[in-house]
Amino acid sequence: MTGAPDGSPTGPAPPLSTVAVVGLGTIGGSLARDLAALGVRVLGYDANLDAVRAARAEGVVHRVMDPGLADAADADALVIAVPVAAAAEVLARVAARPGRLRLLTDVGSTKRRIVEIAERLGVGSRFVGAHPLAGDHRAGWAASRTGLFRGAPVYLCPSASTGPEASDAARWLWEAVGGRVEQLDAAEHDRRLAWTSHLPQALSTTLARTLAAAGIGAHDLGPGGREMTRLAGSSPDMWTGIALENADQMTAALTAFGAELDVLRDALARRDGETLHHWFAEGQGWCP
Amino acid sequence: MTGAPDGSPTGPAPPLSTVAVVGLGTIGGSLARDLAALGVRVLGYDANLDAVRAARAEGVVHRVMDPGLADAADADALVIAVPVAAAAEVLARVAARPGRLRLLTDVGSTKRRIVEIAERLGVGSRFVGAHPLAGDHRAGWAASRTGLFRGAPVYLCPSASTGPEASDAARWLWEAVGGRVEQLDAAEHDRRLAWTSHLPQALSTTLARTLAAAGIGAHDLGPGGREMTRLAGSSPDMWTGIALENADQMTAALTAFGAELDVLRDALARRDGETLHHWFAEGQGWCP
Repeated sequence: MTGAPDGSPTGPAPPLSTVAVVGLGTIGGSLARDLAALGVRVLGYDANLDAVRAARAEGVVHRVMDPGLADAADADALVIAVPVAAAAEVLARVAARPGRLRLLTDVGSTKRRIVEIAERLGVGSRFVGAHPLAGDHRAGWAASRTGLFRGAPVYLCPSASTGPEASDAARWLWEAVGGRVEQLDAAEHDRRLAWTSHLPQALSTTLARTLAAAGIGAHDLGPGGREMTRLAGSSPDMWTGIALENADQMTAALTAFGAELDVLRDALARRDGETLHHWFAEGQGWCP
Repeated sequence: MTGAPDGSPTGPAPPLSTVAVVGLGTIGGSLARDLAALGVRVLGYDANLDAVRAARAEGVVHRVMDPGLADAADADALVIAVPVAAAAEVLARVAARPGRLRLLTDVGSTKRRIVEIAERLGVGSRFVGAHPLAGDHRAGWAASRTGLFRGAPVYLCPSASTGPEASDAARWLWEAVGGRVEQLDAAEHDRRLAWTSHLPQALSTTLARTLAAAGIGAHDLGPGGREMTRLAGSSPDMWTGIALENADQMTAALTAFGAELDVLRDALARRDGETLHHWFAEGQGWCP
C-alpha cells in the first residue's frame, strides 16, 4: 500500500526504501505502521516476541531481524525505539557494523547522552538524535497506531559531526509521517523537555503518590483529577531512565515549580484573596 | 419532552415538578437541560442576560426569574449554581421568603460554609448542600450539555437540622440526572475534595505559571503536558472562592504533595536509580 498516513498522494519516491525499526512499542510501532503505509520496507525487531509476531501478521513489518541486528546493515536507516536506558546498547551493536546505513537515529526523550555515545562509537556522521513528542501513558505494540505523529513536534538533534545525508534523511523520515520537525542542540532539547514533558510527568506521579498515601482512590476523582493522574500510569522503566539522564535539568524545573507553589501556600496561609485571584488569573492567562 | 437524559423511560412522575435554577453556567445549565428533558418545569436566572436568553430560546428554561428571585418561592426546589463566593448572598435572598420550597440546595465545591449559613438563615431544615463532581475548565451556558452528571459522584451534605423531605428531594434530583449520590458530612466533604479536586487544580495552575515564567508556550507541549495544564484554564473567580473557603484543607494536601516531591528531588540529587524506579512504580501502581 502506498500513500501518506492521511491518504494524500506522497509525491516523490521515498529516499529511504528500507528502514530497520528496533522496538515496536507505541512510538516504534506507530512509526513502522506509517512507514509501511508510505511504501517503505520495514525490518522490525522487539524483545517481546508477541509484538514482533503481531507486527508481522498485520503486514507492517516485512522481515523480522534477529537479536544481533546484523540485518540492519542492509537498511537505509535504523530507528532505535527502545527506552533510553537500553538505546546505547542497541546503538553499539549496530555501530560495530553499520553497513550501508545512511541514518542511525533514535526516539528517546533525552538527547545529550545518546548523541555523545554516537560520536564515541564513531557513527556521529550518520547519527541524528530524534524525539517525537507523541504517545501517552500506554505502552507496547497494542498502543501503536497510524497517524500518531501527525502535527506532533519532532526534535532533531544532530551530533557534532552529522553529515548532510543523515540530516536530510532524518528530516524526510519525520516529515513523511506528519511531524513538525525542529532542529535544535541536544543540550537545549534536554533543557526544554525538562519543562514541557519531564516536569508534567513528575507532577502527575507525585499527585498519584500523594493521593495513594491519603487513602484516595481513582474512583473518588472527577474528570479533572483523572486527567491530572493519567500520566502517572506511564512506564517506570522508561521514566527512571529519563530522570537519571536529565536529572540536572529536571531538578531546575522542579525547583522553579516549588517556588510557584510556595506563592500559593503563602497566600493561603494569609487568606489573601487578592493574591490568590492574581495567582489563578496569571495561570489562566498562559493557557491557549 | 419527557424521558431520562439517556432516553430510557423515567418511571414514576417526578416528585419535584418545578425547580428554580440560579446560575446557568456549566453545572446549572447542564442540570437545567437534564431536568427539562425529564419533564420538570425549570425557572431560570443568570446575571448574564445572553445565557438566560439562550436557555429560554432552547426551551430549557420555562420562565425567567427576576433578579429578586421572588418567583423561586413558587418552585418545589431551588438550586444555587453560582460561584461559592456568591452563593451565600443568593441563599439569603431566597431564605427571606422561601414560600413552598421543599428543598434549597447548591452545587459549590466547598460545603462547610454554605451549610453553616443555611442554618444561620433559618432554612437549615430545607437545606442540603450538594456538589456534583463534573464539569471541566470551561465555563458558561455555552459549555453546558445534557448528560453531564451521568455516572458522576455527587456529594450531599445535610445541615444539622435537614429534614427527611429535603433529604429525599435532593437525592431524587441528582439520581434523576444520573449522579452517583453519596451523603457525607460537610467537613469530611471539604477534607476529601481538597485532595481529589482542589489539589489537582492548584498543581495545574502552578505548572502553567512555572511554564510561563520559563518562557514555554502551550504549543511547545505534547499531549501529556497539554493535559496537565488544561485545568489551569478554569475560572479564577471560582477558584479564589474555593481556595479561601477551604484554605486549611488545601494547605494540608499541598504539604503532603510537597513531601512526595521532596522524595523525588532527593533521589534525583543522588542519581539514585533504584529509589527513582520505586517512586515511579508506586505512582503507577495507584493508577486504575
